[in-house]
Amino acid sequence: MVERPLKTGFKGAIYPINPHRTEILGLPTYPSVSAVPGAIDLAVMTTPAATIPGLLRQCVEKGVKGAVVISAGFAEVGEEGREFEQAMVEVARSGGIRVVGPNCMGIWSAAGQLSLCFPHAPKAGPIAFISQSGTFGVAMAQVASDKGYGLTKFISIGNQADLEVSDYLEYLAADKDTRVIVLYIEGLKDGRRFFDVARQVIKKKPIVVYKGGRSAAGARATMSHTASLAGSEKIFESMCRQLGLLQVQESFHLFEIAEALVGSPVAAGNRVAILGSGGQGVVGTDACSALGLELPELDAETSSRITALLPPHAPTAKNPVDFAGSSRTALQEAEMIEALLKLDYIDGVISNVPVSPQIWDRSLKIDRNLNSLPEPFRIALSGAQVYASLPKRYNKPIICLRFVRLEHDVMEDILREGGIPIYDTPEQCARAMYTLVRYGAVRGKHKS
Amino acid sequence: MVERPLKTGFKGAIYPINPHRTEILGLPTYPSVSAVPGAIDLAVMTTPAATIPGLLRQCVEKGVKGAVVISAGFAEVGEEGREFEQAMVEVARSGGIRVVGPNCMGIWSAAGQLSLCFPHAPKAGPIAFISQSGTFGVAMAQVASDKGYGLTKFISIGNQADLEVSDYLEYLAADKDTRVIVLYIEGLKDGRRFFDVARQVIKKKPIVVYKGGRSAAGARATMSHTASLAGSEKIFESMCRQLGLLQVQESFHLFEIAEALVGSPVAAGNRVAILGSGGQGVVGTDACSALGLELPELDAETSSRITALLPPHAPTAKNPVDFAGSSRTALQEAEMIEALLKLDYIDGVISNVPVSPQIWDRSLKIDRNLNSLPEPFRIALSGAQVYASLPKRYNKPIICLRFVRLEHDVMEDILREGGIPIYDTPEQCARAMYTLVRYGAVRGKHKS
Repeated sequence: MVERPLKTGFKGAIYPINPHRTEILGLPTYPSVSAVPGAIDLAVMTTPAATIPGLLRQCVEKGVKGAVVISAGFAEVGEEGREFEQAMVEVARSGGIRVVGPNCMGIWSAAGQLSLCFPHAPKAGPIAFISQSGTFGVAMAQVASDKGYGLTKFISIGNQADLEVSDYLEYLAADKDTRVIVLYIEGLKDGRRFFDVARQVIKKKPIVVYKGGRSAAGARATMSHTASLAGSEKIFESMCRQLGLLQVQESFHLFEIAEALVGSPVAAGNRVAILGSGGQGVVGTDACSALGLELPELDAETSSRITALLPPHAPTAKNPVDFAGSSRTALQEAEMIEALLKLDYIDGVISNVPVSPQIWDRSLKIDRNLNSLPEPFRIALSGAQVYASLPKRYNKPIICLRFVRLEHDVMEDILREGGIPIYDTPEQCARAMYTLVRYGAVRGKHKS
Repeated sequence: MVERPLKTGFKGAIYPINPHRTEILGLPTYPSVSAVPGAIDLAVMTTPAATIPGLLRQCVEKGVKGAVVISAGFAEVGEEGREFEQAMVEVARSGGIRVVGPNCMGIWSAAGQLSLCFPHAPKAGPIAFISQSGTFGVAMAQVASDKGYGLTKFISIGNQADLEVSDYLEYLAADKDTRVIVLYIEGLKDGRRFFDVARQVIKKKPIVVYKGGRSAAGARATMSHTASLAGSEKIFESMCRQLGLLQVQESFHLFEIAEALVGSPVAAGNRVAILGSGGQGVVGTDACSALGLELPELDAETSSRITALLPPHAPTAKNPVDFAGSSRTALQEAEMIEALLKLDYIDGVISNVPVSPQIWDRSLKIDRNLNSLPEPFRIALSGAQVYASLPKRYNKPIICLRFVRLEHDVMEDILREGGIPIYDTPEQCARAMYTLVRYGAVRGKHKS
């Protein structure tokens, strides 16, 4: 437990408490909490369940205000554990100390570089992740980080003996680093309070939720896992709809969807235009249709304007617009997208990442000082800057499909800074747009 | 067009034909096909559509047996193009030359390191990919390669003026490097022949298919894209079911699913056991249930045997088996999985990649000579070898969830060599198992 914060670059003082050793990873140990010389902000506890109430009392006496109890062996294992948990909560409540857990994997805070759960610091970013599953939550967070989604906070909530999901939602709603809250949940301890809190939080920040235990067999599994009553799926879903929680259908869609909400304007309606080559348009159209998004026909004037920007062999521009495999500059694509965003019957555009000069030479390192670049790169990237300016200028979302993932693509950086989320598949793009349409309705952007 | 085969390491001779230049990328050019000194195996043609019939006739005279016509401007653009295409086919048929395309992105062959479509060689492997969409197909193949799926062949089939999808299926059925055929299709030119050919091919190799143009709006988009009549979705789906084609619901599931078919035994039925920590089991159970896979209850004896291998605080083993966040060695996991594979009421197991020693030090390079390794690594990896031996020994599939993606994880290599596919999400694992159940039924492994 000492190793992780050290490895992730935690800068605060760490006082290992251990009466049997004098040193842990180069840090001097202390025989008890009271023996620690300085003040303690947070106690991290991993000793057997039976010892926790007594040790927590020592923390109260020392003036500690917060504890993370990693230890298992509480309510999740039966009657004796339930008694330890009850005793722990009594100490916490009477002593004014708040407790994360027990039976959890701990927390991560990017601001403090404090990891109790990840062996390596995940990518930092504006997504906060609350998980009712410890190991699986840590795994999801790490895969998400590897895929480029940045985390500000991670909380493995465990048995929620003291602090529970609604407390974390309130905290994250006020946390300046958090822009989107992502939630893996199996069941609610206090549905009424959750309803009231989520209704307030959603006005400030989007909440994306994946509910485990949706099948009958899965619900039985949650019983032994987090002792959660999974409850009726229909009730949970209708609560999400009523509150405007963005429920996803696969666990890892949590992060895809969060990424769309991080920087993009929401959509004022469900009318989408798609630009792309052949199959991208076809698959994107299928995926949008399956989610109830509409692809309005283009008016004749817009169609001619866009057709004029396409190569001679391309078919007349319809929706989806077929690039017909032609090469286009970022600026040409931006012009086509702008023609679409101007339309009052189009609420958002799905397109693709313009060809990066780095595609032809993956080893090429490009810095952001465009003036220092050779002509073709400078043109490509200044076109990308125009492209990236469009979402804010028109207050409408653009979502991009990636064709090739480069190690570090400056083209993608430019788009993302403009609030354009980027995905690997047309289906992911469609889901992201669907999310921005749903969240647009939640935030009252829709006119109807 | 000369640059790509050069970049991907093509070893054959390349003769650029160009009457206006003397040299292209260091290679001497020739003014015409007949001026080329040596024999030509394959002509790659990119000149305007109107010139293709005449140039193809020169190829026939030179004795060329195959051509790839990249050029667009044929049947997809209207009447004039249709005439060029007809003329081209007549030359090909009378001259005994077979043509890929026109209006395509070309081909990739790992055996020849020949790329006409990818700027960089994709990862080599046993998956062949036939795509009716050029740009999108190339993009999918590149993303797939970046994700670690290996390709043996890629064919952008274009207008299918001469060779069509059924020809490619027949070819790939006989191709020794191809183990799984993946197909992106929008519509069939000759449904009857496809039915007959696919019925034969499926006996030798699995075919995974994604159909574009499934929604009404998507079907309209295929008309201008590949002039395909998307046809009734219901008819296509029922054909897939009848033939045993493995149809997927999202475009990129093509490769996920192919990966499962590459090395794993198929399943003899739909009864699955899941091992994992908490949420993995819950989400995996939900995903399996949604696909109609069953999780049988464990008999008392098996439950006790597995419970004895779990840490004391873990709940009694049910299905899913909850590891309860405990650390286990690869060998301990292998013992639990073996206890499950022995059961006549379990057809396959979903578990997770055992903790790799590299997780704690990502920079660690481990070679495969286990004897040279420090003790803990040697133990972990020799346990993994036992784990990896199970699918073949029991002729039942194991599918693994990855918790952390390392740059190069020797643990994963060992599992994959044993025929264990590895995924990022429990939902992907469930889809892979579902595929092995479906393909088991196609191959007649199911008893019922």
